[in-house]
Amino acid sequence: MSNSDSKISFEHIISKLKFNEQGLIPAIAQQYDSREILMMAWMNSDAVQETLSTGQVCYFSRSRQKLWRKGESSGQIQSLKQFRIDCDQDTILLLVDQVGVACHTGRRTCFFEEVGSDGEITIIADIEIAPDELYRK
Amino acid sequence: MSNSDSKISFEHIISKLKFNEQGLIPAIAQQYDSREILMMAWMNSDAVQETLSTGQVCYFSRSRQKLWRKGESSGQIQSLKQFRIDCDQDTILLLVDQVGVACHTGRRTCFFEEVGSDGEITIIADIEIAPDELYRK
Repeated sequence: MSNSDSKISFEHIISKLKFNEQGLIPAIAQQYDSREILMMAWMNSDAVQETLSTGQVCYFSRSRQKLWRKGESSGQIQSLKQFRIDCDQDTILLLVDQVGVACHTGRRTCFFEEVGSDGEITIIADIEIAPDELYRK
Repeated sequence: MSNSDSKISFEHIISKLKFNEQGLIPAIAQQYDSREILMMAWMNSDAVQETLSTGQVCYFSRSRQKLWRKGESSGQIQSLKQFRIDCDQDTILLLVDQVGVACHTGRRTCFFEEVGSDGEITIIADIEIAPDELYRK
C-alpha cells in the first residue's frame, strides 16, 4: 500500500481516532502473509498521516519524544499493506511487510518470551541479526 | 493452556511487567490457529494472575473499572493457549481459542475497518451474531 500523491490528507481518519492523554494511539504490526505479530508501538497524529501517505510505517518514540521512522537507522523497514482500525477507534492494526527483523534484539518478533502454565519463561525466537550489526552505520 | 493448581502464584511474572501509570498493560488477543488478530484490551495485575491461573482470559475494563472476565455475560470466552511478553515487558500477546466472536458488534474481530490508500474506509468483516443476541440473558 502506497500513495503517490503525498498531498492526500488523512485528517478525517485522524479525527476518528481516539488518542490518549499523551496524544498517542497503540499500533500493532503484523506480518501480512505469515500473520506473525511483530511488535506493538505508538503513533501520534503526525505518525498516522506519514504512515498513510508514504506507505512506510512511522511510529512515535515515547523515549525519544519524536517521530520514529521504523528502519531509518537499522534498515529494517515496514512497508504498509493494510491499515485497520478497531471498533472503539482506539487501536490500529498494521499489516506490513517487515524487512529483516522487527525487534531491537535482532529477533523477527518482539514477542519472544513465552510464559508456561508453571510460570517458567521460555525464549521462543532466535536472534537472526546481532544487535550491534543492526545499528552500525 | 490451563492450570489445575490455582494456587500457583505468577508474582514473578507480574513483577517483570511494566504497567502504566493506571496500573494497566495492553494485551493483544490472537486466534492461535488462524493467527487472526481479534482485539486489544488491557490487564491489571489481578487480570494477569487470573488469566494465567485459570487459563481463561480476564481483562480489566477501563470503562467499568473492574475485572472483565471475557465472555462472562456473552458466552464468547477466550481459552488461553499461549501467554507471551514482548522485549520491553510492556505488552502482552495472548494466543487464544475464541468461542464465537470477539467483538461487541458481533464480528469475529474488532479490527473490521480498513483504511484504503485513498482514505476511504471499508468494512471487511460481517456481523456473525446480532449484538442484542450476544448480551441476552
